[in-house]
Amino acid sequence: MMRMIDLIEKKRDGNAHSKEEIQFIIQGLTEGSIPDYQISAWLMAVFFQSMNEKEAFYLTEAMLESGEQIDLSAIEGIKVDKHSTGGVGDKTTLALAPLVATMGGKMAKLSGRGLGHTGGTIDKLESIPGFNTSLSPEAFKSQVNTIGCAVAGQTADVAPADKILYALRDVTGTVPSIPLIASSIMAKKLASGADVIVLDVKVGEGAFMKSEAEATKLASLMVEIGTQHGKSVTAFLTRMDEPLGEAIGNRLEVLEAMDALNGKGPADFHHLLVELAGAITYKAELYPSFEAAKAAAEAILSSGEAYARFEQFIHAQGGDLSAFKAVKALTPTLIKAPKAGTIQSIHALNLGLFAMHLGAGRATKDDVIDPLVGLKVLKRVGEPVEPGETIAEVYAQSPVDLDALKASIVIENTPQHTPDLILKKIGL
Amino acid sequence: MMRMIDLIEKKRDGNAHSKEEIQFIIQGLTEGSIPDYQISAWLMAVFFQSMNEKEAFYLTEAMLESGEQIDLSAIEGIKVDKHSTGGVGDKTTLALAPLVATMGGKMAKLSGRGLGHTGGTIDKLESIPGFNTSLSPEAFKSQVNTIGCAVAGQTADVAPADKILYALRDVTGTVPSIPLIASSIMAKKLASGADVIVLDVKVGEGAFMKSEAEATKLASLMVEIGTQHGKSVTAFLTRMDEPLGEAIGNRLEVLEAMDALNGKGPADFHHLLVELAGAITYKAELYPSFEAAKAAAEAILSSGEAYARFEQFIHAQGGDLSAFKAVKALTPTLIKAPKAGTIQSIHALNLGLFAMHLGAGRATKDDVIDPLVGLKVLKRVGEPVEPGETIAEVYAQSPVDLDALKASIVIENTPQHTPDLILKKIGL
Repeated sequence: MMRMIDLIEKKRDGNAHSKEEIQFIIQGLTEGSIPDYQISAWLMAVFFQSMNEKEAFYLTEAMLESGEQIDLSAIEGIKVDKHSTGGVGDKTTLALAPLVATMGGKMAKLSGRGLGHTGGTIDKLESIPGFNTSLSPEAFKSQVNTIGCAVAGQTADVAPADKILYALRDVTGTVPSIPLIASSIMAKKLASGADVIVLDVKVGEGAFMKSEAEATKLASLMVEIGTQHGKSVTAFLTRMDEPLGEAIGNRLEVLEAMDALNGKGPADFHHLLVELAGAITYKAELYPSFEAAKAAAEAILSSGEAYARFEQFIHAQGGDLSAFKAVKALTPTLIKAPKAGTIQSIHALNLGLFAMHLGAGRATKDDVIDPLVGLKVLKRVGEPVEPGETIAEVYAQSPVDLDALKASIVIENTPQHTPDLILKKIGL
Repeated sequence: MMRMIDLIEKKRDGNAHSKEEIQFIIQGLTEGSIPDYQISAWLMAVFFQSMNEKEAFYLTEAMLESGEQIDLSAIEGIKVDKHSTGGVGDKTTLALAPLVATMGGKMAKLSGRGLGHTGGTIDKLESIPGFNTSLSPEAFKSQVNTIGCAVAGQTADVAPADKILYALRDVTGTVPSIPLIASSIMAKKLASGADVIVLDVKVGEGAFMKSEAEATKLASLMVEIGTQHGKSVTAFLTRMDEPLGEAIGNRLEVLEAMDALNGKGPADFHHLLVELAGAITYKAELYPSFEAAKAAAEAILSSGEAYARFEQFIHAQGGDLSAFKAVKALTPTLIKAPKAGTIQSIHALNLGLFAMHLGAGRATKDDVIDPLVGLKVLKRVGEPVEPGETIAEVYAQSPVDLDALKASIVIENTPQHTPDLILKKIGL
């Protein structure tokens, strides 16, 4: 007879759990037969003693099997998926889904809402009048078959054990554990049914992973878990010290994604789109090489085909792009450079929180989002600025204290190089 | 506003708590305003990151202040107390209380029942017909004033926070943490109101502390906590690899304590009694030196005075020693040495569990104790034995498998030294 107290002590003393032990814990958690106070003591022991790859794999499988798994077999072709660990100004899915669809991939994307300083894809799409994220499983799959992509909110009871575990981790100081984060993400990804998965692990001040070493561990573990589960998994480590692209805020980000789909997005965002689309479609064996896949992505963005696919996708889910374009934008407050110099740093976390306070994000689950508010940061780290040059635009509904924003964009009269956006690729 | 999640993360990251933070945790625990799952995650963080002396002191004080504190001011003279961390065959209190009383100390002892392989003083005393351990506070203090000692069960609501915390530690793998053990013991000891406290920290296979290094840390921390609280505290580290004395089992241990009070106890037990009584009465300033106090203890044990005081003590609490002596003992099964040699080791833990299975102790709280059963181990580690010589006696009510007992007394034809019982004295 297995007893939770013995398993807590086993982990506390640095030993590895068997598959049966992990299953016992996750089943007991889901059924409520193991009390919360034992689970949380075990979680803290895991925080300190960590888990090996096998344990993380067993944990992922146990959480995956605790709920429904989406069956995408009705979709023809290679089903692909992409996941970002969350950053500021990360509107990648909005443009990547139609781009990959144009390239022959089938992206059936289930997405979430934002909380804290990071935005959610669903919130962004809902800034388009009429856009419907509550699709029936049949409508969802049918749309992917015809258009190549769909984005819907999570409706199925996917990985309920992860929900319970995450809620407990959130209040017991046990969120920042690599194996717990990896299994939480991968249980949900594997439940979503795709064959090819590309993970965008954000690194830096505006991300959950602050260091490249930590992020590498997390990414490698997720690639390993997915591969052991029979999936093709690739991870990108991308910098999240400064925001991605220029726009932060729901409508502003959709507009930027539309520009990018016409080949006119900010350089960093365009670069990431081409790299991710190249990796996904190469791994899906739609192109003979990663280079060929990237060249195709570039061509499709320039030709306007990707944007045309975006219009079909939005239309298929009831979105009215004419009405969206006709919405009167807020008048921006322009932020000027106070002196000449070079941009030293742009603090993504602060800007994310600034946008949240404007109403672009949620501090708590029940907050209501204003799709119009947000900001645009027009410069990147390493770029020169002239005194009085506009470096940012703020879109607010009411007067706002701009000091936090100004302090987040640091200008000095010393040289600064432009860092690479993509730090590492694992499993490509 | 203090939040428990921040305190968990603070301890998790290796930082020390302030007095206010510890008070917040213990108050929240007692009132139920902090959920168990947060307390248990914090306990596991304490297990890994430990606590410094100040934190352990604050924790002790907070638990002490969560309940009643016994007021012994009605007792004249120096109030003394002794605590053992629990061992096999540890009948010390039974003899120490009347011995110290004869020497001029006032021992108002609150004691507990046994659980697992260690026995409880209250259980042992209740093997004497009529002995009453439920004294009113007035009767308790009055008896100490007249006879010099009394032993009663815990009735006041002493350190309720410790009870809640211990119950949680017991099921979350967080019992073996030096600062948590030290503060749990000291909160109860300080609540008992004595001025001079001697701690007997058992070390070895039959004790909770397995190594001398661990036991030294625990003892030093308890001495420090008590001293900071204004008490005179001394700690002995004593070996608990083999049982203390010969007898294990309730009536058998009372009989052995009576022998010792007549100066006729087993050598190790006699030695410990003299040392502990010497330390207590010297620290209580009843004798000019530790040596003088020990000499007095020896004399009082030889003269029969200590035994006479024992009779008064038992009589005062309603015990009938004539009836006790008249009880027909069980007929022992004699265990013989299978070969010639020297005793290499005697496994106290196994013998404690063996006695418990005979009915001398409780596996669970609701088990009923049989006062008559138990065993006597007639040899000590380092002593030579002849083949067929009786090395142990088993007192059982029904047939019992003796293999576990026999395997616990290891005889080899190689020399073995007799180890010292007392390993260290701290604060003397």
